Amino acid sequence: MRYYYSYTEFLSDCKQLTQNIEWNFDTIIGISRGGLTLSHLLGEYYNIRKVYSVNTIGYDDTNKRDQVEIFNIPNLHESTNVLIVDDIVDSGDTLKLVLDILSHKYPNCTFRSASLFYKDTAIVKPNWYVQDAKSWIDFFWTVDLSSDSNAT
Amino acid sequence: MRYYYSYTEFLSDCKQLTQNIEWNFDTIIGISRGGLTLSHLLGEYYNIRKVYSVNTIGYDDTNKRDQVEIFNIPNLHESTNVLIVDDIVDSGDTLKLVLDILSHKYPNCTFRSASLFYKDTAIVKPNWYVQDAKSWIDFFWTVDLSSDSNAT
Repeated sequence: MRYYYSYTEFLSDCKQLTQNIEWNFDTIIGISRGGLTLSHLLGEYYNIRKVYSVNTIGYDDTNKRDQVEIFNIPNLHESTNVLIVDDIVDSGDTLKLVLDILSHKYPNCTFRSASLFYKDTAIVKPNWYVQDAKSWIDFFWTVDLSSDSNAT
Repeated sequence: MRYYYSYTEFLSDCKQLTQNIEWNFDTIIGISRGGLTLSHLLGEYYNIRKVYSVNTIGYDDTNKRDQVEIFNIPNLHESTNVLIVDDIVDSGDTLKLVLDILSHKYPNCTFRSASLFYKDTAIVKPNWYVQDAKSWIDFFWTVDLSSDSNAT
């Protein structure tokens, strides 16, 4: 079963997320690629200029890899409170690794995390999330451009 | 005059952009924040994992600053052909600075650029763009989350 997650639903969930998050942060890191659009809208909403990205490889299409790699770690020397965002916390491997690596590299920063979806079997729980993940999700940013352009 | 740029129009322009771009690239850099959502959809479409961001400060609301600063420059040592994307090339100051700095720092990379909007008075022209910018544009990623959440 695959669930289509539209821009409209995303916008609604972003609103919910901003109502849930009770924390002042100065930096947003989107986990690339899944967290990029979320980081963009939140950065605009909170008027935060320090919207960065960090890259991981963990999924290969619908197959999970055992290993998660992290690269393109941003410079956080001028950051204090950092919100890490991703589309979904599934196994939790990615978020845990990002939190571990960044906390170790920047011990003076405080890190919290937010996601749109969370699966309760994950090894780490984001501080804030909106929906429980129950099936494979086709995010609009993944499918909208491909599906329609193939139709033309 | 302000023009509202919706997700639907953005998606249509993204499709046009992918039809225009005739180049093989291995890395996408979104200029944060404006280029982040575009970088996300293009990264998914082309199945490129190396979607990075670079940060600049150039605008302050609707007032243009004289100076553009660049920070959070990604590591491109494993990149060859790099597509830099932004929402709009207005004065061109931002894109020119990003191209200058990255070309100088990574002389072995080839850089090209793409944007949704372009103003023909800009000091640099992106290799690919979709629309001419004629008025101030309210991008959906800037206004959708704020406007509606204020209404609730």
